Amino acid sequence: MKLVRYGAIGAERPALLDSHGVLRDLRAHVPDIAGAALLPETLAKLRALDPATLPAVEGSPRIGACVGSVGKFVCVGLNYSDHAEEAGMAIPTEPVLFMKPPNCIVGAYDNVEIPRGSEKTDWEVELGIVIGKTAKYVGVEEAYDHVAGYCIVNDVSERAFQIERGGQWDKGKGCDTFGPVGPWLVTTDEIPDPHVLDMWLEVDGKRYQNGSTRTMIFSVPFIVSYISQFMSLQPGDIITTGTPPGVGLGQKPPVYLKAGQTMRLAISGLGEQQQTTVPAA
Amino acid sequence: MKLVRYGAIGAERPALLDSHGVLRDLRAHVPDIAGAALLPETLAKLRALDPATLPAVEGSPRIGACVGSVGKFVCVGLNYSDHAEEAGMAIPTEPVLFMKPPNCIVGAYDNVEIPRGSEKTDWEVELGIVIGKTAKYVGVEEAYDHVAGYCIVNDVSERAFQIERGGQWDKGKGCDTFGPVGPWLVTTDEIPDPHVLDMWLEVDGKRYQNGSTRTMIFSVPFIVSYISQFMSLQPGDIITTGTPPGVGLGQKPPVYLKAGQTMRLAISGLGEQQQTTVPAA
Repeated sequence: MKLVRYGAIGAERPALLDSHGVLRDLRAHVPDIAGAALLPETLAKLRALDPATLPAVEGSPRIGACVGSVGKFVCVGLNYSDHAEEAGMAIPTEPVLFMKPPNCIVGAYDNVEIPRGSEKTDWEVELGIVIGKTAKYVGVEEAYDHVAGYCIVNDVSERAFQIERGGQWDKGKGCDTFGPVGPWLVTTDEIPDPHVLDMWLEVDGKRYQNGSTRTMIFSVPFIVSYISQFMSLQPGDIITTGTPPGVGLGQKPPVYLKAGQTMRLAISGLGEQQQTTVPAA
Repeated sequence: MKLVRYGAIGAERPALLDSHGVLRDLRAHVPDIAGAALLPETLAKLRALDPATLPAVEGSPRIGACVGSVGKFVCVGLNYSDHAEEAGMAIPTEPVLFMKPPNCIVGAYDNVEIPRGSEKTDWEVELGIVIGKTAKYVGVEEAYDHVAGYCIVNDVSERAFQIERGGQWDKGKGCDTFGPVGPWLVTTDEIPDPHVLDMWLEVDGKRYQNGSTRTMIFSVPFIVSYISQFMSLQPGDIITTGTPPGVGLGQKPPVYLKAGQTMRLAISGLGEQQQTTVPAA
């Protein structure tokens, strides 16, 4: 099942994408793709619907982030061994965690702002995990029970803000629009193994990232279990799981984004994102 | 004006504390002490009310965190020069930022959990800034216009999780219950200068922290302006501004919390908090 939120920013409506690529409105069944709508029992009810009986969405509305009211946006750093190497960082012995503020989340096709004073805005295609059931001190073997599904995340990052401005990474990770999420939340029944997914990212048609979740250091269930030892996770929380090699910082010499460029990124089974960069409003 | 949220966890109601110490219900005027209720025009309307005409709250209800639906909980590290010294860290040349997830927020008198496996749970009395108006690329001279008021924050921290488990501090800052906030949101009219406030913290009656916001390195307007260069701030966001010396990590030898202890902490004009430590649920 591919869950979608469509409509104007701040007024998104829930929908699902049927097997013919038609958006089907879900307002009669859930208020939003968020919180309690992601619980296993709610997802089971949505899955039992016949999409053909749901109203087709007319026109070509904006696609919003695929999860609303995100309470927490937790990020795993350096989770691909070859990316750690290109970033000049040691391969971590346990997951590195940092956070993006939820208000940086935007839709998969929304513009991405280049912050004022930024010279090092960079891209990161990542597999996002959407939590579907509260997780606190959860074991690895039960971790999948707490996952509603997956989505693409572009973990946009300002490297100077992240690394050269006081030590903690959060400063370069949470600028407005630095969190494109979607286009779809693909439920776990469609992604039986999240560790075999190809992923890529292009800037202005040039492919910079070309990887696979096969090379993740820490697996999806390990990450969910691990984070739940440090903070509880709630339905609608998003975890983004690190990026493969090919970020701008890793080019020789480094390459960073300027306003007016286009990022395209995809993960197999999860769709494709495309953002245009613009100067910060 | 002292704004309060009272009632059961997740079902808090808005109130103000009148000059006689009586809680006065505000449900007829705002849905919650959160978001749009913190805008300057809404606060002006609340300030114009005669508290004596508002219903007195009966009994002794639980006091919740003084702000609801917090979107972002941004923290400034090492903002007191003598605390940086006791922590063995360099005095920062610009604010160090990290984040606590909003779901760690609890009321001023709620229990604080000692996480499983924790041996280094520590305390930090801090001045909290509550945002009242969206701030993005705001100058220092206009920063106060974006502040609704102030509150006490106990920036509870697990030092091993923070420092010894992979580099980024967030891992030791966001455990459930690690964010007591309140008891009151004291609006700016009652705190004309937030840089002259005495603050202290005791554990089981022993005073460990005894400081003043006079020794903050970066001022309230500087911090608001600074953060707004990296991420926009919205009404109801909380910024906690660092702690004076006297944390457990700084004792010789270090002293950490165990279950069954009591923290009391206060900042002049902002009231007092008291938490009992319990094993994590």
